[in-house]
Amino acid sequence: MTSYRFAIDVMPKEGILDPQGRAVEGSLPHLEVEGVSEVRVGRRVELSVEEADEDTARAVVERLAGELFANPLVESWTIDRVGGRRTEHSDARVGGP
Amino acid sequence: MTSYRFAIDVMPKEGILDPQGRAVEGSLPHLEVEGVSEVRVGRRVELSVEEADEDTARAVVERLAGELFANPLVESWTIDRVGGRRTEHSDARVGGP
Repeated sequence: MTSYRFAIDVMPKEGILDPQGRAVEGSLPHLEVEGVSEVRVGRRVELSVEEADEDTARAVVERLAGELFANPLVESWTIDRVGGRRTEHSDARVGGP
Repeated sequence: MTSYRFAIDVMPKEGILDPQGRAVEGSLPHLEVEGVSEVRVGRRVELSVEEADEDTARAVVERLAGELFANPLVESWTIDRVGGRRTEHSDARVGGP
């Protein structure tokens, strides 16, 4: 058994109302930020799955995404393997103090 | 001016309590899912920034991340350039019907 770590990104589907995104856009003038648009707000779940192989582990994640993390009617999701506890893409910069 | 699209992933810092992650773990036995652990739940924000160059655009996103999207005391974040409206990593699979 091997432990595989995945990230599931859940976003509102195209054309679906995104009240959180609208709220962010509404707050930008107060921060004196210009040029920001098309804000979409979703969720990100990271988890580890102990399985015999990656395909089996990914199938578990796929099932959880559709049944627990996302509402398939209004949300879509992507599943990525991640190396450690945080995704480290090549062009990623880690923030926070 | 060019439009750059970014994704900001905001996650609870290591060692910080994550009640949503614990709630997911608590629901797994009811779904008869085994082998899933270390669940962390965060947010994902995608947005477009109109700026003269990518570095300036990224600076806008970095400021928004620290002031609006994340609480730097308890959350860390990563910023990625994304191609379109959704991140399409090489090993990503898009879910949803």
